[in-house]
Amino acid sequence: MIDLDGRRFRAAVALRELKADRLLVTRLVNVRYLTGFTGSHGAVVLAADGTATLLTDGRYQDQAAAECDGVEVRVEKTLLKPAAELAPRAQWAVETHAMPVDDHAAFTKEVRFAPVSAGRLVETLREVKDEAEIALLTRACSYSVAALRKIWDGPLEGRTERDIAAELERTMVAYGADGPAFETICAAGEHSAIPHHRPTGRVVRSGDLLKIDFGARVEGYHADCTRTVVVGRAASWQREIHAAVRQAQALGVAVLREGTTPAEVDALVRADLEESGWLERFTTGLGHGVGLEIHEDPFFGPKRTGRLGDRTVLTMEPGIYLAGRGGVRIEDTVRVTPGDPEVLTRAPTDLLEIA
Amino acid sequence: MIDLDGRRFRAAVALRELKADRLLVTRLVNVRYLTGFTGSHGAVVLAADGTATLLTDGRYQDQAAAECDGVEVRVEKTLLKPAAELAPRAQWAVETHAMPVDDHAAFTKEVRFAPVSAGRLVETLREVKDEAEIALLTRACSYSVAALRKIWDGPLEGRTERDIAAELERTMVAYGADGPAFETICAAGEHSAIPHHRPTGRVVRSGDLLKIDFGARVEGYHADCTRTVVVGRAASWQREIHAAVRQAQALGVAVLREGTTPAEVDALVRADLEESGWLERFTTGLGHGVGLEIHEDPFFGPKRTGRLGDRTVLTMEPGIYLAGRGGVRIEDTVRVTPGDPEVLTRAPTDLLEIA
Repeated sequence: MIDLDGRRFRAAVALRELKADRLLVTRLVNVRYLTGFTGSHGAVVLAADGTATLLTDGRYQDQAAAECDGVEVRVEKTLLKPAAELAPRAQWAVETHAMPVDDHAAFTKEVRFAPVSAGRLVETLREVKDEAEIALLTRACSYSVAALRKIWDGPLEGRTERDIAAELERTMVAYGADGPAFETICAAGEHSAIPHHRPTGRVVRSGDLLKIDFGARVEGYHADCTRTVVVGRAASWQREIHAAVRQAQALGVAVLREGTTPAEVDALVRADLEESGWLERFTTGLGHGVGLEIHEDPFFGPKRTGRLGDRTVLTMEPGIYLAGRGGVRIEDTVRVTPGDPEVLTRAPTDLLEIA
Repeated sequence: MIDLDGRRFRAAVALRELKADRLLVTRLVNVRYLTGFTGSHGAVVLAADGTATLLTDGRYQDQAAAECDGVEVRVEKTLLKPAAELAPRAQWAVETHAMPVDDHAAFTKEVRFAPVSAGRLVETLREVKDEAEIALLTRACSYSVAALRKIWDGPLEGRTERDIAAELERTMVAYGADGPAFETICAAGEHSAIPHHRPTGRVVRSGDLLKIDFGARVEGYHADCTRTVVVGRAASWQREIHAAVRQAQALGVAVLREGTTPAEVDALVRADLEESGWLERFTTGLGHGVGLEIHEDPFFGPKRTGRLGDRTVLTMEPGIYLAGRGGVRIEDTVRVTPGDPEVLTRAPTDLLEIA
């Protein structure tokens, strides 16, 4: 059972720190986080005492009532004016990082005081998962890995990227996933050098690196996993870049602990890739938070100096990309703890050679 | 072949009417419309002469080059500052209906003159489809209807809503769709009274109304179709509401012609439902434009007074919903022409009784 009351309580505490009385939440993923509402049109008004009102339209009346326990549901044709009317003289905080300029202007007209920015208030709360979220992420990762193992049973040679991606997605659903967490990347041979390759009709051949970046989605929570194998026997250059990525990735995972910062982890992994001589071929980000969104706070980077908390879930995904030849990425979804990090995508990272 | 140059030319004409020199397009679906770019992070700068620059990050370098013919591609870590630097002294127009407040403030700091609002400039252009778009929408509708006919072959009784929805989605993909256009609604019996019902494990029984609202997606274009059948033999109340919806829907389709307004069509269909005595049970919208988005301009409603143009594609979807008992909706995707409207979702609308 997801503790929605607890989430709203923590959001209300953060709201009071802003010296505001009402929070207007318009980003749908944040609406879902605070209320459980999964429809495509809605907004939440959170009061400083933690009580909440969900506004949505008539299409979602029954669904909202069923999903949003402990929340007053109001059905309205529009959202912003009715929201303002709940407390026209309150000091409002709004999600200026997401709210469109025109909506902000219209809302501001309806209230007495200019709204303040809530910043990424809800996104920041979402960084630390509760136990129900950890359970859903764990399930999503389990289905993902089980489906990958089925693909690895082979054969791979002679199949197209598109065919392998489709089987992987079907298998995750058969195992219990609601669907893929994102469009599966399945990239063979020279395509594996493209970080975000979309599967094509290219046939997998012996000697190819085969990079698969994929994940399952379970009740809105996303898994994210990448493995790169060799079809047939690995050449020495493939072994070399795979070993370099594997070492950097293991190092990165090992230091994902409560109290470290993404900036520190980022610097450490980059130093390792520099030492092995491959840093300039690592052209993507090192990882990101994952939960209700496939990419969410916290992100890695030299300026990310907030400390990681227990129960934050992130990906760790260094790679080496050699244009025209091939690339390797290894990615896990990892739960931060005060002690050893817990890898949720439990599949081997050593270099598999599959026929 | 989609005529992207033509789209940019028309956008540039609209930009000059705003007396602006540069249009910053940040809504991804509009970025795609103007450049062909299908990545998840990018923005377009359109100059008043129709030339365009796409800004995206390193992940999409190759994809952008492959997709965006005739457009300069710039790879940047962030989008807004590099965009502003292309023409810091120009009069910019920005998408204030979509651009977040914080992004707007950051962008405004980088340019000499305060940006003006472009309104829904690109969305308005998108209302009238070109022939390539019509071809993709036609394909999406064909796959949809073919898959529905397979479901109608039955049997339906004894299957769950979820199972029927999954088969429908799989079949569309097998026929050539890239995927479903949206989460399929499959609603049996009392569930059919919920306009946006999500499929459950409810088993379809004899005597149920079975409402299916679904569509295929082909190269980014969406089909949208609803049919409601009876499982087994129809009761007289089911016949009555089905006949009323069918009559209203056929009337609505018949008047979707170049030069009419959504407001006129809306009033006509509502008058018909009022006459048959069911207007108050019609609680949803009458329809919407469909294309790169499943819901896009133009929408129906009493204030929608812009005239429909040739090659606008809309849905027509009246319904009657009787809470606790059942509901009927019939929906087609329809192309507006100067003469008779062209229904793209060519499936019968009469009341089928399926075992």
